[in-house]
Amino acid sequence: MNEFKELMTEIDRFTEERDWDQFHNPKDLALALSIEASELMELYLWKNPEEANIGKVREELADVFNYAFLIASKYQFDVPTIVREKLAKNAQKYPVEKAKGVATKYDEL
Amino acid sequence: MNEFKELMTEIDRFTEERDWDQFHNPKDLALALSIEASELMELYLWKNPEEANIGKVREELADVFNYAFLIASKYQFDVPTIVREKLAKNAQKYPVEKAKGVATKYDEL
Amino acid sequence: MNEFKELMTEIDRFTEERDWDQFHNPKDLALALSIEASELMELYLWKNPEEANIGKVREELADVFNYAFLIASKYQFDVPTIVREKLAKNAQKYPVEKAKGVATKYDEL
Amino acid sequence: MNEFKELMTEIDRFTEERDWDQFHNPKDLALALSIEASELMELYLWKNPEEANIGKVREELADVFNYAFLIASKYQFDVPTIVREKLAKNAQKYPVEKAKGVATKYDEL
Repeated sequence: MNEFKELMTEIDRFTEERDWDQFHNPKDLALALSIEASELMELYLWKNPEEANIGKVREELADVFNYAFLIASKYQFDVPTIVREKLAKNAQKYPVEKAKGVATKYDEL
Repeated sequence: MNEFKELMTEIDRFTEERDWDQFHNPKDLALALSIEASELMELYLWKNPEEANIGKVREELADVFNYAFLIASKYQFDVPTIVREKLAKNAQKYPVEKAKGVATKYDEL
Repeated sequence: MNEFKELMTEIDRFTEERDWDQFHNPKDLALALSIEASELMELYLWKNPEEANIGKVREELADVFNYAFLIASKYQFDVPTIVREKLAKNAQKYPVEKAKGVATKYDEL
Repeated sequence: MNEFKELMTEIDRFTEERDWDQFHNPKDLALALSIEASELMELYLWKNPEEANIGKVREELADVFNYAFLIASKYQFDVPTIVREKLAKNAQKYPVEKAKGVATKYDEL
């Protein structure tokens, strides 16, 4: 079994062992993911980027991955596949020659 | 090279080719992750959980993974390791015998 | 002094008395607002809409208003004015005759 | 009628005229509020705090107030009252003599 499937199987097993699947509809999983991403962001609030506590970043980012994998599992998405599809789409939207070395701000490309 | 490292290398290369690393401090990456998680959640707004557009869920979830991997890469975290550490911690916090089959609501365990 | 100005003056005074204005740049205030909105949302996680704890909703919503007013104050916006401008704009976007009583889902109007 | 009640009545009327109350359960309103707060935050992404577009900040902040007032209305909260209650609670948590002029970071008080 490959590494992504292996990790996702362990995450799913954690849920199953606790009978938590009854709570894990995709809408509430998306809420939970958004809440965890907000908790990660809170580690940077009122601070310079380099001042966040790395041990806490590690834990909150793990929570984000946990819910992201649970959503992927719910829809039976293959994570490397969906990420590569999006990279390919973004590569068309932001071609290197247009995006690189220009003064234009990143968000206005 | 393993699958996680392989995918993260492709994601990092996308950034490097566009000289976007100058924008990618961890604070703004955490903002971007939170914004993408919110866009995923928006697909469920005013709807029942099963009514979200699956093709759009696929794309927005890919964006979430993209920023989550960029943050992991910034801190040189090994993703399976940090996720497994958190699962082990959660297993102590929510032991199966306490969490399973009880009437207590999930959030009040 | 009108009611909005009065309340906003009290909120600003709270910040000034503690010398917290140095932390309150608009970007971090927007982060703080988003984090508080996420904490409000967490009260509904894994629950039916009517199951949230009303006392906690009251407090978290107050936090949301607190940061929203601090941002309005930072830009010297008059809150009733900006809300009414947006209502007028939305009224053009969603005219009653088009929006009302049709089967179309709210989000696809 | 006071200014808060007047504005909230106009916001509620907008919803009623379109029969949108059927979508406005408190859970989805909290999602909508969080999504709007995220859109406001996006105006600062990859930027210094002073670089956000003020006209857009005005509109997104109005959307945040709109949903915050709809939630307040749903629970029949008096906004100035709940905000003042929270200020009083925070004043006890962060007394001026402890919070002011100390080197301690704001978030660790």
